[in-house]
Amino acid sequence: MTTLVFGHKNPDTDSVCAAIALADLKKKLGEDIAPAAQGELNPESKFVLDKFGVAAPAVVTSFAGKDVYLVDHSDLAQSPDDLKEANILGIVDHHKLGDVTTGQPLECWIWPVGCTCTVISRMYKYLGVEIPKDVAGIMLCAILSDTVIFKSATCTDEDKAVCAELAEICGESDLEALGIEMFKVKSAVEGTPIRELVFRDYKDFNMSGKGVGVGQLELVDLSIVDGIKADLEKDIKALKAEKGHHSVLLMLTDIMKEGTELLVASDDESVIEKAFGVAPKDGKAWLPGIMSRKKQIVPDLEKAFS
Amino acid sequence: MTTLVFGHKNPDTDSVCAAIALADLKKKLGEDIAPAAQGELNPESKFVLDKFGVAAPAVVTSFAGKDVYLVDHSDLAQSPDDLKEANILGIVDHHKLGDVTTGQPLECWIWPVGCTCTVISRMYKYLGVEIPKDVAGIMLCAILSDTVIFKSATCTDEDKAVCAELAEICGESDLEALGIEMFKVKSAVEGTPIRELVFRDYKDFNMSGKGVGVGQLELVDLSIVDGIKADLEKDIKALKAEKGHHSVLLMLTDIMKEGTELLVASDDESVIEKAFGVAPKDGKAWLPGIMSRKKQIVPDLEKAFS
Repeated sequence: MTTLVFGHKNPDTDSVCAAIALADLKKKLGEDIAPAAQGELNPESKFVLDKFGVAAPAVVTSFAGKDVYLVDHSDLAQSPDDLKEANILGIVDHHKLGDVTTGQPLECWIWPVGCTCTVISRMYKYLGVEIPKDVAGIMLCAILSDTVIFKSATCTDEDKAVCAELAEICGESDLEALGIEMFKVKSAVEGTPIRELVFRDYKDFNMSGKGVGVGQLELVDLSIVDGIKADLEKDIKALKAEKGHHSVLLMLTDIMKEGTELLVASDDESVIEKAFGVAPKDGKAWLPGIMSRKKQIVPDLEKAFS
Repeated sequence: MTTLVFGHKNPDTDSVCAAIALADLKKKLGEDIAPAAQGELNPESKFVLDKFGVAAPAVVTSFAGKDVYLVDHSDLAQSPDDLKEANILGIVDHHKLGDVTTGQPLECWIWPVGCTCTVISRMYKYLGVEIPKDVAGIMLCAILSDTVIFKSATCTDEDKAVCAELAEICGESDLEALGIEMFKVKSAVEGTPIRELVFRDYKDFNMSGKGVGVGQLELVDLSIVDGIKADLEKDIKALKAEKGHHSVLLMLTDIMKEGTELLVASDDESVIEKAFGVAPKDGKAWLPGIMSRKKQIVPDLEKAFS
């Protein structure tokens, strides 16, 4: 039976590339293993795989009875609904430790760095396996994506050091240019249905018993969404009602200005002021310097809810 | 503020030695850090530290407001009661993934091997730090203890390879002799209060909402406890009542015969037959080949309870 490696729901570039890379590494260590994704790839991920000539992983949503590795998450809310019926062999991640538990010993490599692919790059090194050129390319892009070209608060020296090594392997010399090329693809909103934009990089959380959804659009310029902002606001209100959530937030992150406009649909907007010290006006708050959902939004929100 | 590293409640040799080793490694990587233990050391652990001239870690039971690393566990039931008020920087372990969660990214090295010290030995290697002779000695003993001198079902080739490396560093040539010397200390029951024997290596679990306690005495010969078996049976019944547990089990493991006599105090003895295929007689069941609580008792029990 082939073991499957997969990232979180609404896969982003790290989830996709980490699954491909870990499957490659484990295959070379003798495992019968393949990458998977819990949903269709976003435009940025497609661009990255195309650029380095790597095949997209199969979309799989049911893992009952399978041996699996999780990458880029350890929260049940971001896992397949039937994860309890799978046998978890391991987790490679760079987030807080979530509520996934196992009945058997497993293999976890979870580090406080900017990207799962940084951890996997180090696993290749420690385990004495050479990183193929194409896998180096997509891991490099995943790190540039997750660290917003090294600008995110989540970026560490380890991420930068790994990128330098990967750049050498795949022959990319201008990482800033590669990053901006990728973020232009990521920023594109034309022709994309509003709900798809909300879901482009969206995660559900359970905060002290309250359902909270947080999406993020990373944009090379905030003005890209001027024409559709009202529709986005309407849609997160609708999504909040559909999910029965306490709050649904959408981060419109300007990666060049380095700040986030937060769109807020909430039963109680005061949690936003409590978490970030800024009261939303007309369901919107500008948060200067805020670029990371994981490091700058979720922890403070969890504290505000607790 | 000094970061503290500690293992589970009722510390065993791996919990103690892993805390000392991880503190040594992290100190050499520049952290202000010290080992701790959640309780008094057992005779085996004292013997091991004495043998290699290593100071015992301080006994600490409250960690509120502290930065901490957990070793050898990731279950809240085995953690300090105020763990929620501590800041977990990382976990190094070799068990199933428990219910500890964090609000911040952290560093986890959790591998399906026989001993936490096997993982830490590899961390030294990967991170380019030399293992001191005394730390090599106590890590070697922890692995021999946890793997029952390589006889346990949890023992892997990685454990054996690491032991060979550690033996070279600390100058121990006869690992079987070292192991038996240690297990003779571990086996001693004379002059020890019955409750202390039950608690020598005891853990509480939550199995599908039911409280279950499982203790283990590893003995070089089962006859060592002939004279006190009736008292042990009485005491686990008393402990079950005190804790309000569904079951309290005590594994009397004969490491030379390679099997376990299970003493059972339970609201429903049929779970034992369901889990292990042997019905207890007079509250006792002989389980041939069973030596590991983690790998051969807990998973099957959890299935029987679920």
